[in-house]
Amino acid sequence: MTPLRHTLNHHVMAVGESPIRRLFEIAADPSIISFAGGHPAPELFDVDGLAAAYAHVFATDGPRAMQYGSTDGEPEMREAAARRLQEANVPASAAEVMVTSGSQQGLGLVAQALFNPGDVVLVENPTYMSALQAFAVQGVELKALDGDEAGLVPEALAAAIEMWNPKAVYLIPTFQNPTGISMPASRRQQIADVLADSDVWLIEDDPYAELRFTDDVLTPISADPRLDDRSLLLGSLSKVLSPGVRVGWIRCPDEEARERIGVTKQATALQTSTVDQLAAAHYLATHNMEEVLAPVRAEYQARMLTLVEELSQVLPAGSVMNQPAGGMFVWARLPVGFDTQALVFEAAQAGVLYVPGPPFYVADPDPRTLRFSFVSNGVERTREGVRRLAAVLGTESTLAQSA
Amino acid sequence: MTPLRHTLNHHVMAVGESPIRRLFEIAADPSIISFAGGHPAPELFDVDGLAAAYAHVFATDGPRAMQYGSTDGEPEMREAAARRLQEANVPASAAEVMVTSGSQQGLGLVAQALFNPGDVVLVENPTYMSALQAFAVQGVELKALDGDEAGLVPEALAAAIEMWNPKAVYLIPTFQNPTGISMPASRRQQIADVLADSDVWLIEDDPYAELRFTDDVLTPISADPRLDDRSLLLGSLSKVLSPGVRVGWIRCPDEEARERIGVTKQATALQTSTVDQLAAAHYLATHNMEEVLAPVRAEYQARMLTLVEELSQVLPAGSVMNQPAGGMFVWARLPVGFDTQALVFEAAQAGVLYVPGPPFYVADPDPRTLRFSFVSNGVERTREGVRRLAAVLGTESTLAQSA
Repeated sequence: MTPLRHTLNHHVMAVGESPIRRLFEIAADPSIISFAGGHPAPELFDVDGLAAAYAHVFATDGPRAMQYGSTDGEPEMREAAARRLQEANVPASAAEVMVTSGSQQGLGLVAQALFNPGDVVLVENPTYMSALQAFAVQGVELKALDGDEAGLVPEALAAAIEMWNPKAVYLIPTFQNPTGISMPASRRQQIADVLADSDVWLIEDDPYAELRFTDDVLTPISADPRLDDRSLLLGSLSKVLSPGVRVGWIRCPDEEARERIGVTKQATALQTSTVDQLAAAHYLATHNMEEVLAPVRAEYQARMLTLVEELSQVLPAGSVMNQPAGGMFVWARLPVGFDTQALVFEAAQAGVLYVPGPPFYVADPDPRTLRFSFVSNGVERTREGVRRLAAVLGTESTLAQSA
Repeated sequence: MTPLRHTLNHHVMAVGESPIRRLFEIAADPSIISFAGGHPAPELFDVDGLAAAYAHVFATDGPRAMQYGSTDGEPEMREAAARRLQEANVPASAAEVMVTSGSQQGLGLVAQALFNPGDVVLVENPTYMSALQAFAVQGVELKALDGDEAGLVPEALAAAIEMWNPKAVYLIPTFQNPTGISMPASRRQQIADVLADSDVWLIEDDPYAELRFTDDVLTPISADPRLDDRSLLLGSLSKVLSPGVRVGWIRCPDEEARERIGVTKQATALQTSTVDQLAAAHYLATHNMEEVLAPVRAEYQARMLTLVEELSQVLPAGSVMNQPAGGMFVWARLPVGFDTQALVFEAAQAGVLYVPGPPFYVADPDPRTLRFSFVSNGVERTREGVRRLAAVLGTESTLAQSA
């Protein structure tokens, strides 16, 4: 008899666990200082505010909150998401917005609704590794796009479209994961021009934009109306309110694609938690998010600056790293000869963690790269973490080049 | 240029919206008495109890509740699910249990982790139509199994396995949707015997068992240890606590399949709401569910008895229907010549709704069948709904045969 395991889905069998999942298990040890996970700082969560929102929902609308709801999302949450998008210069309506149980579900639904096995999907290289997983379980072929210090290179996109006839391109234009790069407005415009001349779907992932350290609001590429029949813009409350609550959204102006994503959500999830949606919508309707986010942004910026300053003291000569204008991540490259995947086990033994860069790549992984999250640890703990890392690197005060 | 819509996933394109989704939209009109949806009675929800559980979680464990959690589920919720299963005579451990965002996500994950396009999946005929959707978006071929008044016929299962070499069989052994049939223990044993001799996965869906009107606890087929390497048992809090909260589980003793389902959940959802899981687990840990469910069971039984009694007065001579021992549904067949899909529009105009039977079938749909949910309407409203139906049927007091 055929062993049962051979009967599992062959695309899923080809997908590994997230390579950083095991790191996260190590990171759960409180004696470890982890720069690995992209976990928001829990001490900055508005616990009382969210608790009050849930209490309000149960007190005023309890039976509805506990009942089945709409696959597309509760009207209040769709409105709230549309308002967030409008504030980011996207001309969104509630009718265009579908609520998701977080952006990862959004990526899964988009992949399942759009992709057939063998389709080509273009991605930045490196990029968010869990998006690669969401696409890989659909059996797609991932192709790498070249970037520079301003993000994706438009000519590389145009050439890849010509060469690969792709179904879609997946981009994180603002505070990219893992590189922290934000594409300037001119670059976004060039990319929109290329896509407007193609029939390629844009899957634009925008979870980090609210964590900005300047007043510069970067308009998503999807705001370009020429892309209305081919753009999907994913947003989330994970980085601005709470990742545990699992409320995100997809803005999809194209009616047929939205309907297909809806059928997929209905078949594979039915709906997002009604109580979470109503509580999140009430929170958003009763708070000025600029005021809520101001202290979060200030604290994250302080942590980022500390991390960059400390790293610049201890990374070996010849290292490069960025100084992001927002988001959660600092990306660095060590000098020739270093292997961040080998080094991470030494680092763990020394009580500090980062994420090695190679798993973020779909082609030509650079073994010298590594990612630091700067949001999870306070300033003092960040300093101590870098001291531990210095011991592993065998450096103490070597000055690094800043990229 | 190829129209974009042609580039969507072809399995998803082949799946329609749930045929009863439009009925649910009509059913939202409060002047309509709907027997269509399987919505629990909101007036029986323990709003205060669940509100207190959320308040407790925020007061004692707020930052954790708002933070990212485990893909497999929070330990408390996995333990709580294992305890529910043990009380149903399933020798489950928390390690075997994966939390899902409701059973529909469980079906979606199982389908995605197990099925390749073209795989054959055997289903009862009729069966839960949203399971058919979850399987269809994976491009499987559905084959119908014959049943009788005791549920699936074991010989039909054995013959179908021989003929179709299926990947899996999907069953709802207890208070089946839509028929309300429960397989007796002897029938379950025979089905387990057939499956133990095969390499076919059992996908056992068990959302209704707690809504029983007798003390007879029907042990799931998956409890048979011979099936440990091929059984998946899906449970949910939707029918016993709240469908809006979206917490369910899959018990999967086979480690490799469990890991693949975990990879799929990680890639397509990341995790279930941490706050919902902790609140649900706290509720379960602090309530005697037999006491919580006693008044719900009593009320649902009274509603079922009223519906059956009233229907028996107004269904045309020659009709048959069942009287279920639990669950949510009464299933009926009208005499030759009736077409429940045509009739439902007249019924809606008369202010009453049911679900026509044909969409529940994968083969040989019976146009004379229809499903009534007995849980959503109180006794008086149930009587009024049947009076409205009588006007449509052109009957007033014709005595129906009871099946």
